[in-house]
Amino acid sequence: MIATPALVAPSAGAPFEAQTIEHRDLRDDDVLIDIAYAGICHSDIHQVREEWGQALFPMVPGHEIAGVVSAVGDGVTKYKVGDRVGVGCMVDSCGECEFCKDGEEQFCTKGAVMTYNGRGYDGDPTKGGYARQVVVSERFAVAIPDGIELDVAAPLLCAGITVWSPLKRWGAGPGKKVAVVGLGGLGHMAVKLAVALGAEVSVLSRSEAKREDALALGATSYHATADPAVLRGLRSSFDLIINTVSADLPMQAYIATLRPLGVMANVGLPTGRYEFSPGAVVGGSRVVAGSTIGGIPATQEMLDFCAEHGIGATVETISADEVDAAYDRVVAGDVRYRFVIDTSTIAAG
Amino acid sequence: MIATPALVAPSAGAPFEAQTIEHRDLRDDDVLIDIAYAGICHSDIHQVREEWGQALFPMVPGHEIAGVVSAVGDGVTKYKVGDRVGVGCMVDSCGECEFCKDGEEQFCTKGAVMTYNGRGYDGDPTKGGYARQVVVSERFAVAIPDGIELDVAAPLLCAGITVWSPLKRWGAGPGKKVAVVGLGGLGHMAVKLAVALGAEVSVLSRSEAKREDALALGATSYHATADPAVLRGLRSSFDLIINTVSADLPMQAYIATLRPLGVMANVGLPTGRYEFSPGAVVGGSRVVAGSTIGGIPATQEMLDFCAEHGIGATVETISADEVDAAYDRVVAGDVRYRFVIDTSTIAAG
Repeated sequence: MIATPALVAPSAGAPFEAQTIEHRDLRDDDVLIDIAYAGICHSDIHQVREEWGQALFPMVPGHEIAGVVSAVGDGVTKYKVGDRVGVGCMVDSCGECEFCKDGEEQFCTKGAVMTYNGRGYDGDPTKGGYARQVVVSERFAVAIPDGIELDVAAPLLCAGITVWSPLKRWGAGPGKKVAVVGLGGLGHMAVKLAVALGAEVSVLSRSEAKREDALALGATSYHATADPAVLRGLRSSFDLIINTVSADLPMQAYIATLRPLGVMANVGLPTGRYEFSPGAVVGGSRVVAGSTIGGIPATQEMLDFCAEHGIGATVETISADEVDAAYDRVVAGDVRYRFVIDTSTIAAG
Repeated sequence: MIATPALVAPSAGAPFEAQTIEHRDLRDDDVLIDIAYAGICHSDIHQVREEWGQALFPMVPGHEIAGVVSAVGDGVTKYKVGDRVGVGCMVDSCGECEFCKDGEEQFCTKGAVMTYNGRGYDGDPTKGGYARQVVVSERFAVAIPDGIELDVAAPLLCAGITVWSPLKRWGAGPGKKVAVVGLGGLGHMAVKLAVALGAEVSVLSRSEAKREDALALGATSYHATADPAVLRGLRSSFDLIINTVSADLPMQAYIATLRPLGVMANVGLPTGRYEFSPGAVVGGSRVVAGSTIGGIPATQEMLDFCAEHGIGATVETISADEVDAAYDRVVAGDVRYRFVIDTSTIAAG
């Protein structure tokens, strides 16, 4: 077994403890990764606090992982020691179903294995990125090009791919008007990526607080939606809305800001239900879509795109002893725009 | 002016009267069409009965028009006398906006002119296909290929294009599993077209009543949805659902029958609201779409496809004095699958 220091949540909502955990010995197709940075995703918090149903404890969260390969299994061909790699939300899938063959492993019919708070096909609980090292099949490691520093790369593995998928599926690019709703971890990546793809980007946020940031990120317009008249004034404006917020929104009013044939792609998971009239979508052939992460080929494509365009996440780097406080700040919306843990600060337990 | 016999609804819900109406003299770009058949669309009934808000009376309904060109304006280049042509839901648009230039005239930013119960850009009320003749710009007449009889061609102009649009937009074809919900005027066309496009087609209908018909039309499976267990048994089955019914459906249960990345395209206008949980679409990157008719290029493409594949609507031909009774039968769902009026039976008023 491979022992490594990690941040462990012993039970639901309890503070993190630095402990030594064990990873499996390398299988033929495994790589050992010395983790440099792990991003803090809001879904880590939901799972550590057991807000998404029963969770597996002790838990080592983290699915925004960036590091360097430090050992490889006998059959590994994709990476060598020293390669810069990332790991996202998945660490295994069947590899044989139609979705796996299409590179959409997140829809694997056997069920993709999540990076933490899940069990591998061998039955063992998975352990995520709040650790000094992780073991993963080379199939689920992606190359981080030299053009991106590891700290700003880490959040791309979840926040980046989550918004890249709908931007690509729905054709964000030159001549397209894209609105990003919410300017947080996901939203700020959506703005950066959509701008780099050549779209004309607007940010919709409740208050005026983030106007300057939005424009600095490349958005050309900003709309504070707390006043309902603002949305009404945006009727038939956008080809694509990337809705990154997990709060319940007045769907009908947002759909009305779509041009004919426009798409509202939702990546958040509010607790309420979507509700809108059939006429909101039928008359203008409009679309309400959901979207979740993306497959390994798309994740690699996104990283390559980011390197080419000099894009990384905007991060605030913290040490291991700051993670509990950072969780509270994420819940309060007090981070611009992603915390990453410097995993070298995780003490041996 | 051009005088022609027509069926006129003098006021909301009143029986039809055969009257002589007048069309404008031919403009440079106009064609005069001797109408052979006009289909009865459920939306005719909604408008004649003023169920969709205030309507314009006297009204000559009909936007599923098939006939032969009998005269042309001085500048007409697209058609000549004797050509077989059809007219659908629109008779004019600005021709200059982005949507018109893209051949999506139904989304014209100036507002497309509807074939009846609308006003032309000159302010005059439009008059539809329940008549012996109609005058229309050549831009809004489509060629009916020789391979399709005029009676079975007429319903293609609305029912056909309405389901063709989402089938094409969402990639119905070989290797795709398509479900058609409702087997009426729209649904039977969706089945015929999806089968000809090479998709594997299922029909979902409330009762067992239409099983044989569905299979005869080329569907390979049929599911009677009155028992909720039937939908539950279809989880993750379809790439595309074409929902043609205008009744309120349990959206969540239908969305659950979509495979990951699947699309539920809705062409009906139920009176209630759509309601479903965000998780229904987000986790599987699923899509709820609306769809309305289609542009002139797509309508022509659909007619050419139908000719190539020997497809027409399944019709019951009626005479002018049967229209009132036919309306009641459409509302009762008692037609397989489209009434067309033999317009030669419309008496001079």
